[in-house]
Amino acid sequence: MQTILVLGAGLSSNSLLSYLSENSEKYDWQIHVVDQNYEMLKEKVKPLNRVLPLKFDALNRELRRIEIEKADLVISMLPARFHPEVALDCVDLKKNLITPSYISKEMKQLNDRAIEAGICIMNEIGVDPGIDHMSACKILDELRAKKAEVTSFKSFCGGLIAPESDNNPWNYKFTWNPRNVVVAGQGSAAQFIEQNQYKYIPYGQLFRRLDVMTVPGYGEFEGYANRNSLQYRKIYGLDDIPTIYRGTLRRVGYCAAWDVFVQLGMTDDSYKMERSELLTPRAFLNAFLPYKEEDTVERKLQKYFTKDNQDAYRKIEWLGFFDDTVPVGLEDASPAQLLENILSDKWQLAPEDKDMLVMYHEFEYTLNEQRRKIVSTMVHLGKDQHKTAMADTVGLPIAICAKNILSGNITEKGVLLPLKKQVYNPVLKELEEHGIVFRETEEVI
Amino acid sequence: MQTILVLGAGLSSNSLLSYLSENSEKYDWQIHVVDQNYEMLKEKVKPLNRVLPLKFDALNRELRRIEIEKADLVISMLPARFHPEVALDCVDLKKNLITPSYISKEMKQLNDRAIEAGICIMNEIGVDPGIDHMSACKILDELRAKKAEVTSFKSFCGGLIAPESDNNPWNYKFTWNPRNVVVAGQGSAAQFIEQNQYKYIPYGQLFRRLDVMTVPGYGEFEGYANRNSLQYRKIYGLDDIPTIYRGTLRRVGYCAAWDVFVQLGMTDDSYKMERSELLTPRAFLNAFLPYKEEDTVERKLQKYFTKDNQDAYRKIEWLGFFDDTVPVGLEDASPAQLLENILSDKWQLAPEDKDMLVMYHEFEYTLNEQRRKIVSTMVHLGKDQHKTAMADTVGLPIAICAKNILSGNITEKGVLLPLKKQVYNPVLKELEEHGIVFRETEEVI
Repeated sequence: MQTILVLGAGLSSNSLLSYLSENSEKYDWQIHVVDQNYEMLKEKVKPLNRVLPLKFDALNRELRRIEIEKADLVISMLPARFHPEVALDCVDLKKNLITPSYISKEMKQLNDRAIEAGICIMNEIGVDPGIDHMSACKILDELRAKKAEVTSFKSFCGGLIAPESDNNPWNYKFTWNPRNVVVAGQGSAAQFIEQNQYKYIPYGQLFRRLDVMTVPGYGEFEGYANRNSLQYRKIYGLDDIPTIYRGTLRRVGYCAAWDVFVQLGMTDDSYKMERSELLTPRAFLNAFLPYKEEDTVERKLQKYFTKDNQDAYRKIEWLGFFDDTVPVGLEDASPAQLLENILSDKWQLAPEDKDMLVMYHEFEYTLNEQRRKIVSTMVHLGKDQHKTAMADTVGLPIAICAKNILSGNITEKGVLLPLKKQVYNPVLKELEEHGIVFRETEEVI
Repeated sequence: MQTILVLGAGLSSNSLLSYLSENSEKYDWQIHVVDQNYEMLKEKVKPLNRVLPLKFDALNRELRRIEIEKADLVISMLPARFHPEVALDCVDLKKNLITPSYISKEMKQLNDRAIEAGICIMNEIGVDPGIDHMSACKILDELRAKKAEVTSFKSFCGGLIAPESDNNPWNYKFTWNPRNVVVAGQGSAAQFIEQNQYKYIPYGQLFRRLDVMTVPGYGEFEGYANRNSLQYRKIYGLDDIPTIYRGTLRRVGYCAAWDVFVQLGMTDDSYKMERSELLTPRAFLNAFLPYKEEDTVERKLQKYFTKDNQDAYRKIEWLGFFDDTVPVGLEDASPAQLLENILSDKWQLAPEDKDMLVMYHEFEYTLNEQRRKIVSTMVHLGKDQHKTAMADTVGLPIAICAKNILSGNITEKGVLLPLKKQVYNPVLKELEEHGIVFRETEEVI
């Protein structure tokens, strides 16, 4: 019997735990799982075979090590900042580890020690990062095998709302961490390369410099640039590629309206607003508009920010920003916190709502002096509130990877990404059985 | 005989050293001065009576303490971050200290120890901060003495180029630290209060939300908001004032053109550009413009950023940004560093150029049920490359304050600002003899 320890059982662990449980008899697994909310955890695992809820503080090193010691493999679904601590324990105790998160500097530095310990620490194997890596590498490896010269790679991903639940003017609801959505894109400029020209997009231009693309069966989407696309040249073995770009998907019109919040300064999380507990949505908005004795908030917003975009004005109006009756009610809050609070009300998933994960890859390459383009898209819809598209696309690749490590099909050691055939092939193949399928079109350009 | 130790003898120490030297016989002072550039220092003090150039490292604590011990008063013209170290020595050795810089947190914490040691550590007594504090407090104290209710205080200051040397389309040259000009306004939003409404201006709006004002004899200027004006309510004893605003002055048209750099992301100092050593001004600009195979840099700049502002386009053109012949030549440089380098070429003071310091205060108050407005302005022109307006306005208040501390006219102890009559009255009065004169107009509104 093999034991799998899962740290953290929030929304994104649902599909992971189901998969492990469903396969537990066949592979003789015992699944141990812990969460800071023990009551929730007990309820969640009740219908799950061979899943044992544990009651201890996963952030307490001593207690955690006792449980890691009993396990054959650890899956950390904790917030990303805790992964390096867990990884240190796993190196010490010679246990394999999987996380869905970006490799941090601290994590990278453990590579030699992980190899020495004979363990595999697999990272970035959920979604964005995860399925995006694996599906891109599969096509890139195929192109390389044909000796094609890849000249452009653009890749987009978005966590959105399913068409059947899409009933607000933003065509958006929070299907993931709201805070990350509010502060997305802040910090240094987004960087990429296009036709061998390095390009930089500062935060103030980010939601204005958009790509528009069509996903067969799902209509048009727009994409804005993700932080630093340049690092993916090395990761994907595309060092000399003239164009590489990674972006985030939204429904058309979202970004231009969101940009109004960015321009106003309402997404700033770096300072607290004076007497924030008194601010109604209208007063919050007005704090970023010039003082004009004779002008209403509506007129000032129009005049200075939405003159050429009535759609954006209506979207903001729909969020209740002209409402002056009830304060948002947050003490000592940053603009971003107030904005998140207002949005969370309006962009909340209803119990019957389904989410949607969309991925879009575009490759251009030259082969036998012919220029060709491949578009590969994947759309995955949630089943219900528990088996969301996010939970599936984060949890299933992790679970399948866990199976392959435990069964000895993945033999590489060290701090890893899922970039090798041995890793991505079985995962992508099995994801198809769960309805996570990429569809490719190819044309001469 | 009394000894004054001056740490740092750069451009802004010129008028300070001249004043001290000119008054050294009368008050029996010996002036000791040190600078990291000893050769420059020797040349500079050659014509100055009773000024002794020292050769030691002012950042070396042990060596510095030996010299502080010999002094009756220390003036630190070092970069602001070194003031707390010097202040610690002065507390230890019971020596008075003057700095022109903003009081830092570390400095503030020394207040009790300074009082205990019986010394005065006077700060913010150059220009912006300095003369602005003193001239504002003088009028505010007069209004308070009349029992007037001050309802609005707006204050602006700018280091600019004198009209006779103003010969470029930006009406601007570097008369002060270029780096500070390039990164000015970055960080958290500017904050102020207007008619009891708290207002916030993010960096992306800072150079668009302008006040325009006329200075008699010098024409129109525009002002953009400085960081946090709210703290000045407490400092100036205006806790309940409905409107308080501090800003920076430029010539009209400067801000809208500067805003193009801000929007493009060219003032960002938070990351290094790829292969920055290869970038010509044109390539540097193009890195922030979208890739369009069919469009020139000129057309893209027009289309996306200066469509409605041909004056801004011409200003940017004049700076040579369409030039593709010679790389700027900075390795591993941030956008801000490249921009500063290009500007430093074009905005350099010629040997015969004179600078100009402009200050503008506007007070509104109610007295006997009448609403009135006072405008107080000061314009000071540099005499030559050495006796600049900046050197005068920074150095002379410090020198005059030093005289008053040494002669026992300033008796307050602790970490201080020049907000009290005892301090500002003699300084403002003597500044008038040096041509630094405020002119007031008052009207009923």
